[in-house]
Amino acid sequence: MTLIDGKTVSRKVLEECRADIAAMKAQGVVPGLAVVIVGDNPASQAYVGSKVRTCADLGLFSRHIALPAATSQDDLLAVVADLNADPAVHGILVQSPPPPHIDEAAVVRAIRPDKDVDGFHPENVARLALEDPAAFVPCTPLGCQRLLIEYGIETAGARVVIVGRSMIVGKPLALLLMARGKGGDATVTVAHSRTRNLPAVCRDADILIAAIGRPEFVTADFVKDGAVVIDVGINRVTDPSAKNGYRIVGDVNFADVSPRCAAITPVPGGVGPMTIAMLISNTLKAARLQHGLAS
Amino acid sequence: MTLIDGKTVSRKVLEECRADIAAMKAQGVVPGLAVVIVGDNPASQAYVGSKVRTCADLGLFSRHIALPAATSQDDLLAVVADLNADPAVHGILVQSPPPPHIDEAAVVRAIRPDKDVDGFHPENVARLALEDPAAFVPCTPLGCQRLLIEYGIETAGARVVIVGRSMIVGKPLALLLMARGKGGDATVTVAHSRTRNLPAVCRDADILIAAIGRPEFVTADFVKDGAVVIDVGINRVTDPSAKNGYRIVGDVNFADVSPRCAAITPVPGGVGPMTIAMLISNTLKAARLQHGLAS
Repeated sequence: MTLIDGKTVSRKVLEECRADIAAMKAQGVVPGLAVVIVGDNPASQAYVGSKVRTCADLGLFSRHIALPAATSQDDLLAVVADLNADPAVHGILVQSPPPPHIDEAAVVRAIRPDKDVDGFHPENVARLALEDPAAFVPCTPLGCQRLLIEYGIETAGARVVIVGRSMIVGKPLALLLMARGKGGDATVTVAHSRTRNLPAVCRDADILIAAIGRPEFVTADFVKDGAVVIDVGINRVTDPSAKNGYRIVGDVNFADVSPRCAAITPVPGGVGPMTIAMLISNTLKAARLQHGLAS
Repeated sequence: MTLIDGKTVSRKVLEECRADIAAMKAQGVVPGLAVVIVGDNPASQAYVGSKVRTCADLGLFSRHIALPAATSQDDLLAVVADLNADPAVHGILVQSPPPPHIDEAAVVRAIRPDKDVDGFHPENVARLALEDPAAFVPCTPLGCQRLLIEYGIETAGARVVIVGRSMIVGKPLALLLMARGKGGDATVTVAHSRTRNLPAVCRDADILIAAIGRPEFVTADFVKDGAVVIDVGINRVTDPSAKNGYRIVGDVNFADVSPRCAAITPVPGGVGPMTIAMLISNTLKAARLQHGLAS
């Protein structure tokens, strides 16, 4: 059984990014990422802090814009408009979730599609469906695909079952893996809460991807012998023995499932670390597209 | 075995449209459809003629704009811009395929998304993925879904296998059938030319949908006993015994497959007639949205 090590792959991707950034700087382009956070959600602040630190480490220009929780929709849209117009900023990310008075969909739509490094703008959703290479693909699906590629797991013709139909992971991942080309050409099934006999559907999978947000939901009876299992879930479960009183588990019951897998991602240390690496990678893509540089 | 009669369902949908049109006229709104054709492809002319006649029969306002094959991209875009601005036109359709010097994707993008009754504009592709009820869904997928609904074939939790991953049928149909709600909630698999062991994948289907454009490709070994089979294919095959020297067949070998089905669409007379009915239905939806009328 191979443990798919997202930390190592993420580090590799980031080192490639570091080299690309140096090459772009030699051509006079400093890639820039703006991260906007509204309010003081501690988890969001931790994510944003980690993104900003990664940018600094790699020599990427970054702007960290922290707005008070009471920021109005109009003020937030004005910040986005400024960033859209700022030539030093190639990628814009507004950390999710914003406070409840903010219309998140409207904010996403306000981001210039060619700066939408999260890949949530409708323009990028459509480009992904249309297999347009200029599409920005959401970071978590992109990270899953990259793990498969790095571990030499063939997707062409493989049966992939994705559990979960969200627009953050399930649907874009389905479109990505069924598209033509490297890391694609898979026969993709999207299963979800309404699927009948879910374990049997999942047992068809050569590659099973869990993205449902239910702690340790996927057990051994969901998994064909020799399958590859990708666990996108990041769930907090209470654990009195842990320092913080909780621990992080995936959507897959690792102890139960791992003995029958050919390969599996752990949680933490699997898909999670890939997300930030793909965000940086998307930012470099944005800078290249905006400056007409070859990739 | 039930024969799914697209002619009868299409007629029913069009009669519902006729009643809706009368009701809208009573409110002072005459729904209008513009059909643009460039060049003199006989098949395209026949399609356009049939659309225009259906509009006339139902009391829909229609504009039929026939442009010479040599029409430039700019001139075509100017025609689209005029139609976008014309308050009497609620739906715009540019018949596919245009002559080779026309950039079809650019023309589709130029159509106002709320007049894009073909559902091919990126904005509508994204809305479909996002399960936005304002999405215009392409007519053929919509017609397939309507046939299932009219025949009381439950999609929720059913395993649907779609063979074909085009943006005209396969992908939008997958998004439509996996969306939440009536005629949706299916467990959808998209299979295609790279799928390994296609017959076995297809045999998993409670509902098998063929949209590959290969005459009579789907044979009995693709079909589970009691499955529902929807044949989207419209292929010309030479037939010296036929009056025109050809006949129309689907992607399914009807004689071979039909004995094991619970229900199946014939070709012709299955999905084909639904497309125009859903085009009219989409035009009424466009008129309602543009005038703020309840549906």
